[in-house]
Amino acid sequence: MDTKQNLGIVETRYFTFANPPNELLLESERSLGPITLAYETYGKLNRGKTNAILVAHALSGDAHAAGFHEGEKTPGWWDSMIGPGKSFDTNRYFVISSNVVGGCKGSTGPSSLNPKTGKPYGLDFPVITIADMVKAQRHLVDSLGIEKLLSVAGGSMGGMQVLQWVASYGERLRSAIPIATALKHSPQQIAFDEVVRQSIMGDPAWRQGNYYEFGQPEKGLAVARMIGHITFMSDQSMEEKFSRKLKNGHYSFQFGADFEVEGYLRHRGDNFVRRFDANSYLYITKAMDYFDLSGGRLIPNGHTPQTRFLVISFKSDWLYPSYQSQDIVRELKGKHADATYCELPSTYGHDAFLLEVEEQTTLIRHFLDKTLNGYQVADGYEI
Amino acid sequence: MDTKQNLGIVETRYFTFANPPNELLLESERSLGPITLAYETYGKLNRGKTNAILVAHALSGDAHAAGFHEGEKTPGWWDSMIGPGKSFDTNRYFVISSNVVGGCKGSTGPSSLNPKTGKPYGLDFPVITIADMVKAQRHLVDSLGIEKLLSVAGGSMGGMQVLQWVASYGERLRSAIPIATALKHSPQQIAFDEVVRQSIMGDPAWRQGNYYEFGQPEKGLAVARMIGHITFMSDQSMEEKFSRKLKNGHYSFQFGADFEVEGYLRHRGDNFVRRFDANSYLYITKAMDYFDLSGGRLIPNGHTPQTRFLVISFKSDWLYPSYQSQDIVRELKGKHADATYCELPSTYGHDAFLLEVEEQTTLIRHFLDKTLNGYQVADGYEI
Repeated sequence: MDTKQNLGIVETRYFTFANPPNELLLESERSLGPITLAYETYGKLNRGKTNAILVAHALSGDAHAAGFHEGEKTPGWWDSMIGPGKSFDTNRYFVISSNVVGGCKGSTGPSSLNPKTGKPYGLDFPVITIADMVKAQRHLVDSLGIEKLLSVAGGSMGGMQVLQWVASYGERLRSAIPIATALKHSPQQIAFDEVVRQSIMGDPAWRQGNYYEFGQPEKGLAVARMIGHITFMSDQSMEEKFSRKLKNGHYSFQFGADFEVEGYLRHRGDNFVRRFDANSYLYITKAMDYFDLSGGRLIPNGHTPQTRFLVISFKSDWLYPSYQSQDIVRELKGKHADATYCELPSTYGHDAFLLEVEEQTTLIRHFLDKTLNGYQVADGYEI
Repeated sequence: MDTKQNLGIVETRYFTFANPPNELLLESERSLGPITLAYETYGKLNRGKTNAILVAHALSGDAHAAGFHEGEKTPGWWDSMIGPGKSFDTNRYFVISSNVVGGCKGSTGPSSLNPKTGKPYGLDFPVITIADMVKAQRHLVDSLGIEKLLSVAGGSMGGMQVLQWVASYGERLRSAIPIATALKHSPQQIAFDEVVRQSIMGDPAWRQGNYYEFGQPEKGLAVARMIGHITFMSDQSMEEKFSRKLKNGHYSFQFGADFEVEGYLRHRGDNFVRRFDANSYLYITKAMDYFDLSGGRLIPNGHTPQTRFLVISFKSDWLYPSYQSQDIVRELKGKHADATYCELPSTYGHDAFLLEVEEQTTLIRHFLDKTLNGYQVADGYEI
């Protein structure tokens, strides 16, 4: 394996749909526009434009997947996986990472200015779906002149986008890597999302979504994120990280944070309020809950996909349990797709797709290698 | 098995500590008084006072465990288990059910009047522990003239009280039945409780606990309870009950309750606000988080308990997973206690201790029978 290196300084770019009316017809049958997508790219697109990989982010992710922004000390959210010599090897591949529509990190979302009012959309922003996010991404991929992606990869909601690419534009994919994801949310997953939304919407500071001139609904959003963090970890990883360790060595007999795990959650909640828009959290969780490619919707009947699949789940992930990945594999095998499934033995819970670098790298590097080689043989292309 | 019957109309009674200064010295070294405990009894205490069973309730339970209150259509929370011919057979046993200190159902708690101010305690109420709850219960049992309980039984926090009885007053128990419980909360359980508390305390209507003249912090308390309900069920029981069924047959593309599971959670949250005091929720969850009888604290070293144990857990309970019950059994076996363990194959999750009547009944009836028979032989008592 090559020596792993960092990408160094990277920049977020912005793509605004060029073609009039610069609008997207949404699944809700409403239109949204103008639309801008924040995105980053790493590595170089080859002459044949055959080495492009799209990575899709999870709930609170953004376009900044790898490398460092000028002056910052924390790299992008999947930096351990993207870069020279890494899983998505930028010496070989051209990696595109785009922020989703509905987000708050440079792409058009509920905190963007509504051209009709000159004020932030708030709840006037239309409810978007994973299919809408992917439709917007397809415009971005079009604009880069890429007809066929070597792969599309992502974990959690990123994995939903991967599956939606398969359903919407399968003919434009050589391969797909859905990680720690599902064909649809179970009622338990919907329930967690609904509690998250109720926590935000129940905060009077939410003001029916029109809080932008007053500040975020901090309390509700922090609690929402705390719930999230519990579901991202596992019982075992929490035990390993916190056990019952006390912050000050003794019980306070008050309602402060006695246990380290309480301090951790409060800290994560408070940090989140500074970096993520509450309305975007509502829109994106709703998109995840609406997502449903079960019942034959992933691949049309009578169609055998030419796309290769690598499906990954993690043993301790109870938010997106392995049976949901196995459901994906069952759908694929039912359509005679070339699909490999691997359940990795992590204790990190759902967070594993961000943390289990080594085992994922072994799997993904090999899978991409084989995809690229098959591609070259089949099409006579050269890198 | 006898024919099962209902208890008919029952009444809650109130026990106020009789002995001056009518106070309890708490684990926090603060004093609390005067103290009243709400309690109910079912069946008759025999002449030898050898047939008394204490049942202890969970987080949001109360003294009303069985039978009907005048004019009400819903029976007590464990009515399926307590009554003539039932698991805790009131033809044979005298069942005592007491509401915990810190609660809001007739026992002294944060919503009670503070005699020093004439106003509700609010956060001036001292933080109480499971040991404090059990100490108060012991006073109640004393007042009934019962030296030795035939058994003490309960699920969830009720099970913690059972274990605390073993640790504090083991010599006063013939047997103990801890169900779906733990020697201590894991960091995941603490985390869920902390999110619940943050949801309540983050609601501006909570007003630092002084909301009694204004009304409950409804939004925060409802969200807190919604979180609870997710953890009480299992992934499978939610799938069986709700699947992805829609309330109105189609997506609303708004932020209402699209899915039945969302409507259910909102409904449970709203109902809870009408029946439970937010501060009591804070105090009781804190007591559960502080509880820790691991590391040899359940039974003193060098001591072999004469108490018989029946430990029950449920396969799909992920809030109090079976490994926690197995930890209890390991502690007991390490002290050469007479302990039976049973993991029941329910899909109901943590709620199973309230819902899995038949299998629990088989186990518990037999266990109590044997306890009572052994008791009579050993002590020469007659029922």
